[in-house]
Amino acid sequence: MHRKIGFIAIVFSSLVFWANGALAQNTSPHLVLTGKEISAIRKDWAAYPVFKKSFLEAKNKVDAVIGNTIDVPVPKDAAGYTHERHKQNYTEMYLAGFLYQVTGEKKYAEFVKKMLLKYADLYPTLKQHPEAASSSPGRLFWQSLNEYNWLIYTSQAYDCVKGTFSIAEQKLIEKNVFRNMAEYFAIERVEEMDLIHNHGTYSCTAVGLAGFILHDTDLVNKALFGSKKDTTAGYIAQLKTLISPSGYYTEGAYYARYELLPLFVLAKAIDNNLPEMKIFKFRDSLFNKVLQATLQQTTINGKFLPLNDGVKDKNYLSPEIMVALDIVYDVYGGEKALLDIAKKQDKVMLSGAGLKVAKALAEIKNIPEFERKSVNYTDGANGDEGGLSILRTGKGIDESMIVYKYTAHGLSHGHYDKLSFSYYDNGDEVIRDYGSARFVNVDQKWGGRYLPENKSFAMQTVAHNTLVVDEKTQFGGKIEVSEKYHPDAYFFSIDNPNCKVTSAKFVDPTNPVKTQRTLALVKITELASPIVIDVIRAESDKIHSYDIPFYYAGDFISSTVKYTANDKSLKPLGKGSGYQHLWNLGEGTVDSSLQVTWLKGNRFYSLTASADSTTSLVFTRIGASDPKYNLRNDPAFIIRNKEKSCVVASVVEPHGLYDSVNEFTQDSYPQIQSVKVLKDGVDFTAVEIQGKNSIDYILIISNNDSSSKSMHNFMLNGISYKWTGQVYFEKHKGD
Amino acid sequence: MHRKIGFIAIVFSSLVFWANGALAQNTSPHLVLTGKEISAIRKDWAAYPVFKKSFLEAKNKVDAVIGNTIDVPVPKDAAGYTHERHKQNYTEMYLAGFLYQVTGEKKYAEFVKKMLLKYADLYPTLKQHPEAASSSPGRLFWQSLNEYNWLIYTSQAYDCVKGTFSIAEQKLIEKNVFRNMAEYFAIERVEEMDLIHNHGTYSCTAVGLAGFILHDTDLVNKALFGSKKDTTAGYIAQLKTLISPSGYYTEGAYYARYELLPLFVLAKAIDNNLPEMKIFKFRDSLFNKVLQATLQQTTINGKFLPLNDGVKDKNYLSPEIMVALDIVYDVYGGEKALLDIAKKQDKVMLSGAGLKVAKALAEIKNIPEFERKSVNYTDGANGDEGGLSILRTGKGIDESMIVYKYTAHGLSHGHYDKLSFSYYDNGDEVIRDYGSARFVNVDQKWGGRYLPENKSFAMQTVAHNTLVVDEKTQFGGKIEVSEKYHPDAYFFSIDNPNCKVTSAKFVDPTNPVKTQRTLALVKITELASPIVIDVIRAESDKIHSYDIPFYYAGDFISSTVKYTANDKSLKPLGKGSGYQHLWNLGEGTVDSSLQVTWLKGNRFYSLTASADSTTSLVFTRIGASDPKYNLRNDPAFIIRNKEKSCVVASVVEPHGLYDSVNEFTQDSYPQIQSVKVLKDGVDFTAVEIQGKNSIDYILIISNNDSSSKSMHNFMLNGISYKWTGQVYFEKHKGD
Repeated sequence: MHRKIGFIAIVFSSLVFWANGALAQNTSPHLVLTGKEISAIRKDWAAYPVFKKSFLEAKNKVDAVIGNTIDVPVPKDAAGYTHERHKQNYTEMYLAGFLYQVTGEKKYAEFVKKMLLKYADLYPTLKQHPEAASSSPGRLFWQSLNEYNWLIYTSQAYDCVKGTFSIAEQKLIEKNVFRNMAEYFAIERVEEMDLIHNHGTYSCTAVGLAGFILHDTDLVNKALFGSKKDTTAGYIAQLKTLISPSGYYTEGAYYARYELLPLFVLAKAIDNNLPEMKIFKFRDSLFNKVLQATLQQTTINGKFLPLNDGVKDKNYLSPEIMVALDIVYDVYGGEKALLDIAKKQDKVMLSGAGLKVAKALAEIKNIPEFERKSVNYTDGANGDEGGLSILRTGKGIDESMIVYKYTAHGLSHGHYDKLSFSYYDNGDEVIRDYGSARFVNVDQKWGGRYLPENKSFAMQTVAHNTLVVDEKTQFGGKIEVSEKYHPDAYFFSIDNPNCKVTSAKFVDPTNPVKTQRTLALVKITELASPIVIDVIRAESDKIHSYDIPFYYAGDFISSTVKYTANDKSLKPLGKGSGYQHLWNLGEGTVDSSLQVTWLKGNRFYSLTASADSTTSLVFTRIGASDPKYNLRNDPAFIIRNKEKSCVVASVVEPHGLYDSVNEFTQDSYPQIQSVKVLKDGVDFTAVEIQGKNSIDYILIISNNDSSSKSMHNFMLNGISYKWTGQVYFEKHKGD
Repeated sequence: MHRKIGFIAIVFSSLVFWANGALAQNTSPHLVLTGKEISAIRKDWAAYPVFKKSFLEAKNKVDAVIGNTIDVPVPKDAAGYTHERHKQNYTEMYLAGFLYQVTGEKKYAEFVKKMLLKYADLYPTLKQHPEAASSSPGRLFWQSLNEYNWLIYTSQAYDCVKGTFSIAEQKLIEKNVFRNMAEYFAIERVEEMDLIHNHGTYSCTAVGLAGFILHDTDLVNKALFGSKKDTTAGYIAQLKTLISPSGYYTEGAYYARYELLPLFVLAKAIDNNLPEMKIFKFRDSLFNKVLQATLQQTTINGKFLPLNDGVKDKNYLSPEIMVALDIVYDVYGGEKALLDIAKKQDKVMLSGAGLKVAKALAEIKNIPEFERKSVNYTDGANGDEGGLSILRTGKGIDESMIVYKYTAHGLSHGHYDKLSFSYYDNGDEVIRDYGSARFVNVDQKWGGRYLPENKSFAMQTVAHNTLVVDEKTQFGGKIEVSEKYHPDAYFFSIDNPNCKVTSAKFVDPTNPVKTQRTLALVKITELASPIVIDVIRAESDKIHSYDIPFYYAGDFISSTVKYTANDKSLKPLGKGSGYQHLWNLGEGTVDSSLQVTWLKGNRFYSLTASADSTTSLVFTRIGASDPKYNLRNDPAFIIRNKEKSCVVASVVEPHGLYDSVNEFTQDSYPQIQSVKVLKDGVDFTAVEIQGKNSIDYILIISNNDSSSKSMHNFMLNGISYKWTGQVYFEKHKGD
């Protein structure tokens, strides 16, 4: 608690200092932008192509509307004209404010003033929006989230132009608009402001910026430390709670991207106005870490991993990342590799940071590639609530990537998918996560919101590549339970570049089975491409059904399992927990190693898995119980076992070439032919991988000692295996 | 008949002349390549980058193997080592022969000689291949088609190097290999040589080239005029029968591409050895026309339209097109736009033609874009057996394209899809044809051949975007019937760039309904993108079920039709004619205009169609009765009517924007709201199209007079519509 109290004390004293020192009017901005930045931009805006382009884009946008009648309509709709008008208004004011500072042209300041005076007329007359969202109503907008954005952008606009306003105009606008709106957020909508959630961050940033504008220490303190100013809520609590010490934002990359904007904008305002807080040094340079972690959570095309309710296709070109990246580049000493991404963004923030990035892009010749690494992020405020591993090998289109999710729940958008994984190769999803069921902003699809099937399917355990016990969703699908528990990191080792491994353990107390999943990305000399090794152990003293779905992307080619296809009639695979959305395409039983081959793009993939006398293979496809045809009809196969304890080891092997232009096919059969669990116990699991061309490997996992320094000696069929560390992976010594 | 007899006479006299004149040995090639070409290549091979690259690629390939042991194995397998070895052998000999001519290095000629002497040992000992295809057995290969290729390439190799062989070696090789093999084709496999089919062309080209090599007038004449030398078969008959006067090859683009190689190679040999035949002037420069028509049958990415059994993804970068294009460029005066495609191929033929193309690529600065046009090709030897229309508007990624297929059957790979269409926009298939069911060369998938589902589904009428009468496949799915009949072109008009129209008529005698389908690509001022208008009329005096499937590509968004989804259990839509492969996802009835919206890429598409009291809408997805999971699971909807005669008018409108990076969605609802058939009769069909922003158009089609010059006067609701030509399309004059 010492640290917290000390911190507040510093803040309070700074605020007092600042509030006294800044009362004099000046025409320089001092909220997010500063006078110094503006001077630099005035001098050099045209000197660096990317800044010039971003600047002219802003100028053209505003110049195109500046002669038009200013419309500040009475709010009516949730997605129609008045909604879009108020959104455009704040964007236009924000840009016009900036342009006034840089060009000194009065017309831009006049534009903002006229518009703000109209808002000063309108805003005090408004009650709740006629189409207000029940849980988070706004006044200008149907939902408060849009209104937070309005205040975030408009505060910055006002900061740029207020010096041109009369004192009376300032007073009127500050009272009717800024105070009015900030108090609406901090009092009536205080519940949302105090949330430890991205909505909370938007609210706190809006209130914080307004507080600085109004020179209102109390508002600023509420924004920073919660409505009770006791540090249990507010911006600082969000920073401490939502982001782990490793930089992982608890909702995953897609929402991290969303969270970064208010986080960074308010941080800049704090840094400008309360420099003593040294906000950018907070938590060991957390702002740098959270950006880096978010950038690592991408595919080779820069798309964010579709963790939790992430929407596929969203990528690091999005404007929020641009803002965060430019500020990190500016604040943390100019890491050149960030420019690799800035180059792709081809746009910079209209600020001193943006100018620096543009300058660097223009002047630095050999920009290094942004390095995509194998990383392990902890989750939770203290970094002890599970985590996320990303294993990578290869560069560019040849990158293979395993994403292993053993995080905590991740707020309201979290999925029940502990110990799930996905696999990318050759630029594509090969074993994929569904992501979220949503068509963003498409009105016909449930108003563009998350679809009902997002909850009934996409969030459920069976929608993911992970173990499903007794066909039930983890924690009974109850968020209040799921938020209490999390898997535990077991080990993560990338010391051996030919065998990168990650392992975690998990017990769901609502259906207790001890589960451990170990995933490895492995290069063996016999194969051109790296393979994935996946070992799932489930221990229980009761018989359970253990389903492991693999949502493969591509066309089914073949299976070694003799199955009966349900090709004349389809029924759902189950009745609930997401199973109602899966068509049962066919099933077969097997008692030794099983194999499924599919084709994705111009490459084949085969999964070879261990099996025993209780194993069956189920072919399935998403799409049942979906009367609005909302779901993607992705295929999957499920490895199903029924026993007390269960170990399934599998290997995914990329192979061959399908060249449909030259009608040339090579190696459509895999090299690996069998995967067997040779031995499994509390201490060790031994897996044998065999195939053509003398492929014969043994993987031994230490199940009860995660130290990288422990020495092990394991006897198997009379042979002694000795090694140091968590896993042994070598050519098989056996006969 | 006069023309034919005259033609043969010329050929015979030329052959005699040539056979006498060319007996003297010379070291210059005179089969496909000539001494003159070789001189030019010797001089300039390194002068033009693309030629140099192609040349070095060949050289590296041969240099890499020239020291290895030459293996000419006894044939064993259909897809294993011996198969691949013999394929590589002919490629290596072909390239080595060429390299000998250009470099003069003996090692290349020695390499060919050694290998040919081994073939001279082996070939006479061979009987039918142990895994011979029952219908078309080879000796070196399991199927004769591979063996034709062997002879085509090896003849050219021999032509380049025979001057370095002793007379005894020449005699041995010519007897044991060339004569032996050519006679095997021309006698034992004569049935295939006499086929009017691409296999026939491969056979005739192989036999023809061998005939030239052997100076055997009889073999050459058999290759050119059929085994009976009566012009009923052979290369010339193939040229006359398989390609229409417009240049359309009867199997469609994918097989045209395949056919072009032997067609052009033998044409070059004829031109070199029988120049009096003026083969490249044959049928009004047919070789130019067939290449141009094949190139027009592509998507904006150069992929061949998947007509009939076409395999998707095959494109004009394929080597056969390179050969044809280089020869056409050389022979027909160097059309610069062809260089636009040659540039993309980035490779040229190793010949004088290839050198010319490479020179032009190096020297011509402003290569014009290859123009993608609206075209109408006739089918049939005389151009009177239906045809293929392609309507286009817009450039590059903005091209909209309608493909309308009303061709004749198109040989054994033809589909029962008269009057079917597909629609491309924005670089994508939007309403798509299934193409063929095949994974080329993927052994697990039926040995890489056409899958059983190709016949049971992909060929069937219901697998296409066309009218299905009584849920039955056209002509009862019998090729012998289908080959007798064809639709008839009705009109094609592209004079109005804002309203390009094509129309054809068809009666299937096995289930007689008079059908007329008219398709238009139309730009109206109210909409940013062109729309598709589709009007199907079916006339009968008995009640029929009329199904019109639309295989849309993308995600279903919404429909105005209230339907009952079969979301808890799926059954096939029918029992045969391809319906057994469609799952019945749901159905609804409707009695006025119906609408379906889907999302493809970042654009929405809505189909709005007329409906009446008998109309229902069926949602379906491919995949039933498919126990091996061979089929793509594409979705479709079917507009179903049950009545005597039926007119369905529909409009496909592209609209809006789905930007998932910026999470921005615009205009997810279409502008067009209703399509109605106002009047339909023997003479005219009048369709009204209405929507937001005062969209209100009328389309009147003349059903009984296809002249572009006829004046029409049509009364509708008391208003007189007067126009000249086949269609009237204007703003609605009505109230």
